[in-house]
Amino acid sequence: MTEFVQQRHKEPVKLAREREILVACEPMRSNVNLSSILRTVSCFAIPKVIASGQAKVIGKVARDGEHQVEVKIHRSLPPVLKKLKADGYRLVGLEQTNDSRCIFDYRFERRTCLVIGSERKGIDPENLALLDDVVEIPIWGLPYSLNVANATSMALYEYCRQFPEG
Amino acid sequence: MTEFVQQRHKEPVKLAREREILVACEPMRSNVNLSSILRTVSCFAIPKVIASGQAKVIGKVARDGEHQVEVKIHRSLPPVLKKLKADGYRLVGLEQTNDSRCIFDYRFERRTCLVIGSERKGIDPENLALLDDVVEIPIWGLPYSLNVANATSMALYEYCRQFPEG
Repeated sequence: MTEFVQQRHKEPVKLAREREILVACEPMRSNVNLSSILRTVSCFAIPKVIASGQAKVIGKVARDGEHQVEVKIHRSLPPVLKKLKADGYRLVGLEQTNDSRCIFDYRFERRTCLVIGSERKGIDPENLALLDDVVEIPIWGLPYSLNVANATSMALYEYCRQFPEG
Repeated sequence: MTEFVQQRHKEPVKLAREREILVACEPMRSNVNLSSILRTVSCFAIPKVIASGQAKVIGKVARDGEHQVEVKIHRSLPPVLKKLKADGYRLVGLEQTNDSRCIFDYRFERRTCLVIGSERKGIDPENLALLDDVVEIPIWGLPYSLNVANATSMALYEYCRQFPEG
């Protein structure tokens, strides 16, 4: 029988190379959700978050994530997404749509921008039209939709599972 | 080029059989975190959460999750964990310890109780001593620890990825 002893705030794992995933968020209703996403992003050493609208990071929720991650706030996403696509990023939305792929079966490309919609409205049609792929996390029960920060964390988990070394 | 059209709150996926995973939470500092976990648990059709201490579910955060999931509140976890172990549940903690397995390489047993520690203190030594396995999610950056609701969501995501049909 193993005796488990806690090691809080262990030395982080080292990446073999810098991650090439970015996260782009539509204007969020809640800066708590945005900041919560930022904490996960930072723990996973994802270099950059593109936020939009009245985005403001709450340090207490992001827990220093905002000091490690570059947070760029834009008025709207479409011009940024177009530029990222020209730079070779695959634009992947996290959304329930008519043609979403189950995330369990999806192979991410390393150079990916994960696009996140707002809590109430999801991804705007103008941004949906720019996406290469849309993935969704299966839902088996009420309320039939995940919290946006939890869902984003799961999608980033999946990406990092596929690219544990960056 | 696909035209993606949103389908919010799609018909949920059906399980082939009821899930055998439970979640047991040590006393949380924040009922927001507990309620956020409950929302994910409910979306994943996990039948039961064992909470402890002054646990109280906030409906607005759990978003009806509390109506679908059985929430049992106990004064302390060790007697419950012992009983679950006797009932054939594998007790798996989510924690950074000296002997945690990387969750990317971990094969869950179907009949599992996932044990979650509190935000500040993690899993108590008394509960750690009862666990069969401990898994951890790798961390590559600051603040070197994930939010408890996001981390729990990722671990449940991994379990459901391994058992998509229940």
